[in-house]
Amino acid sequence: MKKTILFLFISVFSFAQIQKVEPAFWWKGMKNHELQILLYGKNIANQTVALSDGVLIKNLQKVENPNYVFITVNTGEIKTSKFNINLKKGKKLISSYSYELKDRNPGSAERSSFSSKDVIYLIMPDRFANGDETNDSKPDLTEKANRNLPSGRHGGDLRGIIKNLDYLQNLGVTALWLTPANEDNEKQTSYHGYAQTDLYKIDGRYGTNEEYLELSRELKKRGMMLIQDYVTNHWGISHWLIQDLPTKDWIHQFTDGEGKYGFKRSNYRTTSQFDKNVSEIDKKEALNGWFDTTMPDLNQSNPLVLKYLTQNAIWWIEYAELGGLRVDTYPYNDKEAMAKWAKAITDEYPNFNIVGEAWMYQPAHIAYWQRDSKIAEAVGYNSNLPSVMDFTLYTDLPGALQEAENWDKGMIKIYNALGSDFLYPDINNILVFFENHDTERFNEIFNANPDAYKMALTLISTIRGIPQLYYGSEIGMRGEKSKGDADIRRDFPGGWKSDKQNAFNPQTQTKEQKEFYDFTQKILNWRKGKEVIHTGKTTHYMPKESVYVYFRYNEKEKVMVVLNNNAKEQTLDLSRFAESLNGISAGQDVITGKTFQLKPENKLTVSPKTSLILELN
Amino acid sequence: MKKTILFLFISVFSFAQIQKVEPAFWWKGMKNHELQILLYGKNIANQTVALSDGVLIKNLQKVENPNYVFITVNTGEIKTSKFNINLKKGKKLISSYSYELKDRNPGSAERSSFSSKDVIYLIMPDRFANGDETNDSKPDLTEKANRNLPSGRHGGDLRGIIKNLDYLQNLGVTALWLTPANEDNEKQTSYHGYAQTDLYKIDGRYGTNEEYLELSRELKKRGMMLIQDYVTNHWGISHWLIQDLPTKDWIHQFTDGEGKYGFKRSNYRTTSQFDKNVSEIDKKEALNGWFDTTMPDLNQSNPLVLKYLTQNAIWWIEYAELGGLRVDTYPYNDKEAMAKWAKAITDEYPNFNIVGEAWMYQPAHIAYWQRDSKIAEAVGYNSNLPSVMDFTLYTDLPGALQEAENWDKGMIKIYNALGSDFLYPDINNILVFFENHDTERFNEIFNANPDAYKMALTLISTIRGIPQLYYGSEIGMRGEKSKGDADIRRDFPGGWKSDKQNAFNPQTQTKEQKEFYDFTQKILNWRKGKEVIHTGKTTHYMPKESVYVYFRYNEKEKVMVVLNNNAKEQTLDLSRFAESLNGISAGQDVITGKTFQLKPENKLTVSPKTSLILELN
Repeated sequence: MKKTILFLFISVFSFAQIQKVEPAFWWKGMKNHELQILLYGKNIANQTVALSDGVLIKNLQKVENPNYVFITVNTGEIKTSKFNINLKKGKKLISSYSYELKDRNPGSAERSSFSSKDVIYLIMPDRFANGDETNDSKPDLTEKANRNLPSGRHGGDLRGIIKNLDYLQNLGVTALWLTPANEDNEKQTSYHGYAQTDLYKIDGRYGTNEEYLELSRELKKRGMMLIQDYVTNHWGISHWLIQDLPTKDWIHQFTDGEGKYGFKRSNYRTTSQFDKNVSEIDKKEALNGWFDTTMPDLNQSNPLVLKYLTQNAIWWIEYAELGGLRVDTYPYNDKEAMAKWAKAITDEYPNFNIVGEAWMYQPAHIAYWQRDSKIAEAVGYNSNLPSVMDFTLYTDLPGALQEAENWDKGMIKIYNALGSDFLYPDINNILVFFENHDTERFNEIFNANPDAYKMALTLISTIRGIPQLYYGSEIGMRGEKSKGDADIRRDFPGGWKSDKQNAFNPQTQTKEQKEFYDFTQKILNWRKGKEVIHTGKTTHYMPKESVYVYFRYNEKEKVMVVLNNNAKEQTLDLSRFAESLNGISAGQDVITGKTFQLKPENKLTVSPKTSLILELN
Repeated sequence: MKKTILFLFISVFSFAQIQKVEPAFWWKGMKNHELQILLYGKNIANQTVALSDGVLIKNLQKVENPNYVFITVNTGEIKTSKFNINLKKGKKLISSYSYELKDRNPGSAERSSFSSKDVIYLIMPDRFANGDETNDSKPDLTEKANRNLPSGRHGGDLRGIIKNLDYLQNLGVTALWLTPANEDNEKQTSYHGYAQTDLYKIDGRYGTNEEYLELSRELKKRGMMLIQDYVTNHWGISHWLIQDLPTKDWIHQFTDGEGKYGFKRSNYRTTSQFDKNVSEIDKKEALNGWFDTTMPDLNQSNPLVLKYLTQNAIWWIEYAELGGLRVDTYPYNDKEAMAKWAKAITDEYPNFNIVGEAWMYQPAHIAYWQRDSKIAEAVGYNSNLPSVMDFTLYTDLPGALQEAENWDKGMIKIYNALGSDFLYPDINNILVFFENHDTERFNEIFNANPDAYKMALTLISTIRGIPQLYYGSEIGMRGEKSKGDADIRRDFPGGWKSDKQNAFNPQTQTKEQKEFYDFTQKILNWRKGKEVIHTGKTTHYMPKESVYVYFRYNEKEKVMVVLNNNAKEQTLDLSRFAESLNGISAGQDVITGKTFQLKPENKLTVSPKTSLILELN
């Protein structure tokens, strides 16, 4: 009732109020002194904006919609920590906002970021653990908790993650990537978070901005870090900025499209980004078409949009002390704008890592998106994006482990995938994974067969790149994409008080879960200190009899990995590996601790469907 | 009997004779003045070599085998057209060879070569036409003609090709690529010619060097040209240089291999050429392993071998007035040596084109081999090889025409194949084809369905690149690779006097043959003058309902190609192509002559499984 009265008051008197300011605050001492502040209020553009304390407005931009004003200030020139943004009608002060420039954390700019030293663990916050039942439903957020709906809100939250950090630390992962935790106030299926409705606010059902920062700090205490999932391509259709668009071209609208905003679905052909034969109409449909009906496609080529996305990303990095970003649907964006976006962030944080989801199939097409790619340079582009995802390996891995050996089937697929490493400008900085929140669960494909899981985990934990796990894999969780996305995003057992079984506690894990967990814990914790795995070189050998062998090495250490995907025990003639075993006499298996004699004249016997990780000496 | 006496004479007296000189002659006025001459004779290295007419030996190289001497002269310093190579024992002249430096043809160095203006027609000489029955079997060549053996010698020859040049010219092809025509004196299956036993001599069963030159000149008279198939990777095991190796490392021999020369089969993993993780043993097996038991793998990194291969290639270009080279099994060679080989040739003939058979699957892997590739440059390599073959399109085409439309099946495969064009440094200079002498016959895959053939021919005749046909496709010839290579290399009907049917004469072609032939003739002859096809740009449109549409255009002309692979008639809304049809009102189909209205408001109806090539105006 109060709201209604206030609204009437404003409407009747038509005096603009500052209803929203974004970013709500900023920091002193950023490298880029330019700060653009969005002011929102009814007919705000018809009023006068002035700043207190002698702070100058460098630029004031009005747009089609009079409810917006964008002002630019130079933070380098501002001596105070606070100044007022005043809205005046003539000389009369109508509304005022106290703008704060906070002090940065020491070393903020030079922070380190995720790298091949890390293992990333991907969590969907709604589906991991419900640490605070009081926030399961919120009065101001449409969708209420209902665990009976597969695609409903289940109540998982930041508190649930914080409470299980010991579990994660013990597991051996070192970085958490959460699918978007910002407010997603869509009417339904909002749990995935990719239709964000407020870019400066954690979804109330996950917690608060303060809890998000708390999570980040708790991670850092454990030598871990937080990676934020950033979506530049689209927002939720219920986003307040979409509902009251600053400019028509804030989003892509098709004149021949459907609905209020001219919706047209993307054709998803992102090869149009580099296809030199592409027609404009196809390219436009690919890049400007919407990812889904509720996800208006942002126009990053609009400088105001790009500035908004850039500042928002930096705001979260600085505020939440982030260790990295993961960027959604990377090739669907305007690539020139995104190159500026990535550059602005990495200019501000030179060691910061950002991984883009460039879901393509050919290594050359993926490598194109990595910073300083020669493939891209040849056609005049540089993404400035430090990291990409190895979708080739992801795509090929199930076949590699399932198929009968052939010229191009079976384990040779892994060998071939790594054969294109030369196409990447920074091969250590690519994500390696066998599943994520958009894919069939690996343990579904392999019917929760721990042998297949162990082989796949051994591979991604010991080859070049940054391993990425998806929550629940480590206890054998299954999920079938053909049943709908919700099935690959099931609740982690034990995350809810009512759960009958708790897999967070190794003591209460089932025998099956424990087999997955123990192996994962062993290999990930071993990996933590292994520079030879993080940054060593690789020598691999053409698979024979479904056995794939490779070595990781640097000047100090050497590790031999053997993946026997054969259903039979295999005995390897070690003389074949003489160039890598030169000077080596024995090796100790990381998992079993067993020692193997590894002189060229020795034979190495490997059990069926088993891997060995041998530390050589 | 005579031979035996001569041999005894030489053996008893041990006086070396010059038995072979290679190259047998050379030319004045080459850019590279350095000429290395191989002298062969029993114990020749123990004698003195001297040249007449004051010609200096710049370098004289002896090797392990005393039957060889390699002398280097500077042809730029030699004023006479002939000089003698004298072999002396003390002051006594034992043997002499009159070496000739011929005059070059005017404009030889600047000759033009094959390009996207051309259409290449691939012939296996043994299987095309028998124009001279007297050479079917030769006393000095082991394998005799036997047309009853699928893999035997069938008697086809150069005269047969020369006699059918009118047929080829009328068909509309402009360049002939013959599989190797040099002597291949293997005991059996020698018809394919890839196990050469004399690199300076046309196989007697095909004809003579003079007839080869005659063929080349007859082609030039018709505005056509000859492309020689060059094999740098291996020779036949019966090659005299292999039988009496100059050095052990003239070829690759494996200490753990089999047989006299340490045979080991290649693992055929040529990705080892750029795989940064490759093990030396795998790479060695790939590159140094033999292509087959009768094909010793040449060591191009041996400077003598490289020089031999370089001079031999130049010798044929100059002697036979060649219009280009096709190089066999390109990535199996030493790539650094091959870069020198290609550079030496293109330094000598700056406009000369050479296409390498880099049979790989990913466009990035194929593009790596093309001159000035940025992909290769990034890892420090430049092949200097002007042209490569579009094996991606070849691989994807059958599926494109056969499969039900899907995210990555059906016509989208062609669209995707062209989507990687940006990876090639010179996209117009790549061969486009749907079959060759090593593949299943296209008309076998499609059960001699002319619709599929027409669609495929339309595609390769109108997209970027150099179309390459394989003899007999134009009359619907079939052949099943699983029955053995011979089946895809059947005799062209009418090439032999005893043939019951003659497809060389359009009057005597069967109705089925004629349908293939007429279409081919029409499209290829039309293509000859179409600069817009040769070098125009391309705009293509994502296939819809199995219809793929693209435009070729330059400043003067525009062509619209429609491939309707749908089993039903399709009606296209032309407004979708507005950006390409801008200013166009109508188009005339090249095949039927029919005119179509092409304004944006028009509809274009295309019959099932039919293509249109519309010249726009």
